[in-house]
Amino acid sequence: MPQLRQDLITGRWVAVATERARRPDSFSQAAREPVPARDVCPFCPGHEQMTPPEVLSYRAPGTEPDGPGWWVRVVPNLYAAFRLQPEGQDVREGRFLQRDSIGACEVLISSPDHRAAFPQLDRHQVEEIVQSYLDRFRAHQANPALEYVSILYNHGRPAGASLEHPHSQLYAISLVPPSFVAELEGARGYAAKEGGCVFCRTFDDERRAGARMVFENEGFTVFCPYAARTPFETWIAPRRHAASLGDLLPAEKADFAQAIQVTLRALAQGLNDPPFNYFIHSAPLRGDHEAVYHWHLELIPKLSTAAGFELGTGMWINVVKPEDSAAFLREQVEAAVKEHSAV
Amino acid sequence: MPQLRQDLITGRWVAVATERARRPDSFSQAAREPVPARDVCPFCPGHEQMTPPEVLSYRAPGTEPDGPGWWVRVVPNLYAAFRLQPEGQDVREGRFLQRDSIGACEVLISSPDHRAAFPQLDRHQVEEIVQSYLDRFRAHQANPALEYVSILYNHGRPAGASLEHPHSQLYAISLVPPSFVAELEGARGYAAKEGGCVFCRTFDDERRAGARMVFENEGFTVFCPYAARTPFETWIAPRRHAASLGDLLPAEKADFAQAIQVTLRALAQGLNDPPFNYFIHSAPLRGDHEAVYHWHLELIPKLSTAAGFELGTGMWINVVKPEDSAAFLREQVEAAVKEHSAV
Repeated sequence: MPQLRQDLITGRWVAVATERARRPDSFSQAAREPVPARDVCPFCPGHEQMTPPEVLSYRAPGTEPDGPGWWVRVVPNLYAAFRLQPEGQDVREGRFLQRDSIGACEVLISSPDHRAAFPQLDRHQVEEIVQSYLDRFRAHQANPALEYVSILYNHGRPAGASLEHPHSQLYAISLVPPSFVAELEGARGYAAKEGGCVFCRTFDDERRAGARMVFENEGFTVFCPYAARTPFETWIAPRRHAASLGDLLPAEKADFAQAIQVTLRALAQGLNDPPFNYFIHSAPLRGDHEAVYHWHLELIPKLSTAAGFELGTGMWINVVKPEDSAAFLREQVEAAVKEHSAV
Repeated sequence: MPQLRQDLITGRWVAVATERARRPDSFSQAAREPVPARDVCPFCPGHEQMTPPEVLSYRAPGTEPDGPGWWVRVVPNLYAAFRLQPEGQDVREGRFLQRDSIGACEVLISSPDHRAAFPQLDRHQVEEIVQSYLDRFRAHQANPALEYVSILYNHGRPAGASLEHPHSQLYAISLVPPSFVAELEGARGYAAKEGGCVFCRTFDDERRAGARMVFENEGFTVFCPYAARTPFETWIAPRRHAASLGDLLPAEKADFAQAIQVTLRALAQGLNDPPFNYFIHSAPLRGDHEAVYHWHLELIPKLSTAAGFELGTGMWINVVKPEDSAAFLREQVEAAVKEHSAV
């Protein structure tokens, strides 16, 4: 069973998961060399037996679970830092505290096509990916042992993608992680002082200012935030106030999918397919966050290395103004629109 | 002038520093290829004119500033995210807030030898490096415009070292960054509830438990912390309670240098010279933190990639138990001692 350990000084929890059973010397230079492409990809159709049984799939009528015929397939992650069980046990070692790491890790295989990078997927497929996010989010939301569901996508090895086949990931965990504690504190502070949702204000201000806007449709705003941490950091935010990804309405799904697709294509086009991470920020599952929290997607291209300054201080240095990042991405969006209408 | 920008939601500050004047398209694939080794290193003796004038050097009697003859040389960083000026100006854009990024960035060239990696430096040189940390720390401490001094070392390109020649870095800034806000909150909470210094308690507990210890001498304890964020994360902590690096006594310098050297050699030996970041955590310069804070050095080898989960949640997953990391490093330390006594 993987464990959570609490740092006595800051109270922060770390997951210690040794499932992969790597010996310490496996971290020496030779083992750090790039892993060659695998002959057999466990995420490709026909290889369904290489993964644990599926928990969800969208597949052609008449096809069998854990066989081919799917276009989205969700399976438990073989190497799980969080694992479902009825109740967690605490272990104390003097002042130190350790706890069973309860939760679930899932892989959302986002296309049957091994070589279909996310930016190249068609609109309908992106809508199906969004649907799989919703279905799995809601499934875990119903489990009272869980406090948070994080859904994310790692693209490219420098961004931490260990398998080439396009896949999203879901982590359902039994605590509220630091990023959301900080956001909630800020949002509650703002609501108490100024009234209203600080996210709504920020997103509206970004639309009004315009200089950092990348794209918008009826449902979503895409922009490089005012205090972006990295070059080309981009947020995709729903215009309707809603605390949780689980609140997404069926009618909003197409707009969300379009916003993701337009953003990823602009990035891939303009920067020659850079590695990136995106992650959905949604309200914690328990407690009343409806009024103050506002879900959104944050995307961070992996173009620089967080080094001693960032790791040591928790502060970021961004070498490109978000206004310049946004102008560059806007140009890509406009070029794509022109190309499309020319066809 | 570089800028600080405040995120409206969390209140966190980001430095926006476009000094290097990179155009957005310089981030596309071609530009991301590894930079070839430079023919001419600005940190090598004889090339002193390639850097701004030195602010400190330890050099042979009779040699001239900004000429050869030094063994440690400190110069302002050409690409500074923080710059000294008498007073910062705030610029408001609606609700958004921007401020001049006041401070100093310095490069502490840690050896005249381009190819002398830090783990290979001799003890006397490491003591001189520590002395340069102290001298520059104290110089900035005296400036009332500054709130924090961060000193760090990046080793290897994957850990963000952009030049091969061994060098430490110093950032003196006008705010207290998030890592220290979190540590101070935790430490004050502990002092109020339990009394005493939570760092002293933790370090004593680690010595008593033993399983995560790597090395100790009269002045310093080296261990992999109970809630280590990454494989082989290692802390070097002074046994005498002291809030600030600036409190280091002359008699403690040799022990600190030995602890650094033993740790870096164990890491280099055991894992075939892995990239790493280390950074010194010291109390903020202003305010009374004497009783609750305890300075120390944190070292994080760069062996894995912080991906969507870590970036999105602020939470870490560690795939090696700190007990196993420590046992492995202890073996390296013991082997080095044996080898040394056999010679």
